[in-house]
Amino acid sequence: MTEQKKTTIVLFSGDYDKAMAAYIIANGAAAYDHEVTIFHTFWGLNALRKDEPIQSKKGFLEKMFGKMMPRGADKMGLSQMNFAGMGPKMIKHVMKKHQAMPLPELIDLAIEQDIKLIACTMTMDLLGLSQKELLEDVDYGGVAAYLGEAQDGQVNLFI
Amino acid sequence: MTEQKKTTIVLFSGDYDKAMAAYIIANGAAAYDHEVTIFHTFWGLNALRKDEPIQSKKGFLEKMFGKMMPRGADKMGLSQMNFAGMGPKMIKHVMKKHQAMPLPELIDLAIEQDIKLIACTMTMDLLGLSQKELLEDVDYGGVAAYLGEAQDGQVNLFI
Amino acid sequence: MTEQKKTTIVLFSGDYDKAMAAYIIANGAAAYDHEVTIFHTFWGLNALRKDEPIQSKKGFLEKMFGKMMPRGADKMGLSQMNFAGMGPKMIKHVMKKHQAMPLPELIDLAIEQDIKLIACTMTMDLLGLSQKELLEDVDYGGVAAYLGEAQDGQVNLFI
Repeated sequence: MTEQKKTTIVLFSGDYDKAMAAYIIANGAAAYDHEVTIFHTFWGLNALRKDEPIQSKKGFLEKMFGKMMPRGADKMGLSQMNFAGMGPKMIKHVMKKHQAMPLPELIDLAIEQDIKLIACTMTMDLLGLSQKELLEDVDYGGVAAYLGEAQDGQVNLFI
Repeated sequence: MTEQKKTTIVLFSGDYDKAMAAYIIANGAAAYDHEVTIFHTFWGLNALRKDEPIQSKKGFLEKMFGKMMPRGADKMGLSQMNFAGMGPKMIKHVMKKHQAMPLPELIDLAIEQDIKLIACTMTMDLLGLSQKELLEDVDYGGVAAYLGEAQDGQVNLFI
Repeated sequence: MTEQKKTTIVLFSGDYDKAMAAYIIANGAAAYDHEVTIFHTFWGLNALRKDEPIQSKKGFLEKMFGKMMPRGADKMGLSQMNFAGMGPKMIKHVMKKHQAMPLPELIDLAIEQDIKLIACTMTMDLLGLSQKELLEDVDYGGVAAYLGEAQDGQVNLFI
């Protein structure tokens, strides 16, 4: 009767600190043998972007979104005390000092731990993001894929 | 043993994109035969406002809140890249192009699908919103109404 | 078979209104005999700060974070319509008028109702907060403590 526990997180936010919280909870849950899924939608997709610019055909607005949004986890801002980019530098500095894992390493660890990373195809369309702009280990799906995971889970969070 | 699944969402945020995410998940869950409730509190109440000004007696501060807050789903801003109102225009433009439903239509669909839309009476008092300022299909309740739904549910989110 | 219900909230946000929502749901759930835990992480730790300055040895960046972050629940800003501090004053004014409990009282009530308030030790390190800067009734733990509570719960929220 030791049923498999499940943690499913919607990562909507594109903030470094919120994404960190999401990945810390996800990695913790995986370490406790939960089956874990992070469903990335809207600005949360930026955590999955590769950090180099990728050529891809886009409409004008999609190109603007693509340029203005951070390319990958390391370039995201803070939800509070961002101070035009100083905040993330400060946080990363204290994280290093206290040996906390930076977000890109937390994402790598998640992939190692077989956490399912899903990118929301509907919002990829809206923001003009193509699959070749995102990390290799990403799955693709919509709200049905999310609900399929979430409805049998114990820990469901929207971050 | 196919027990009725339940999704309950607290919509706290007054951001267009977050409200969209809430209503997309809610409509998806209803399509998968979940019993769905969206409990609107604080700024999330703005999604339920009618778009015309409604006469109602209010104190000075309540009147100010009423004026400053967006009247209805279509006037809400973005949680990120709002750019003084340009962001929502851009998003709505790409949504149209990709045939994604705008928020007011997502709300209509939710009503058609019998999703229960509850407005939090306590925060209505605080923000000076009266029932006649909100859409017709709204129910009213407090934290007890919310917990009554949430505690038997599978998918519980705070957005 | 009337199993003990459980509500577990991650309070990540340092906004007055979001913390209010968290504590109102938590107090409501406790009144309905749920076992309730609020896990304070990142900016949500500010709700637990004592309002007087506390001497403690810190690095430079940690000292800066300590100075810039609000000292205690009463000094937190709003997530929307903050208007450089006018928003919280307005909200507190209408709250008084409508006899809604201000946040510090909601926290006192939570303590009276035996709601478990946990401070995330990992983010305390990052933000340079020491135990003597936080309220007396606080427990300390990490992501494991959170998951231990959350995985058996019915209502799980990230605020």
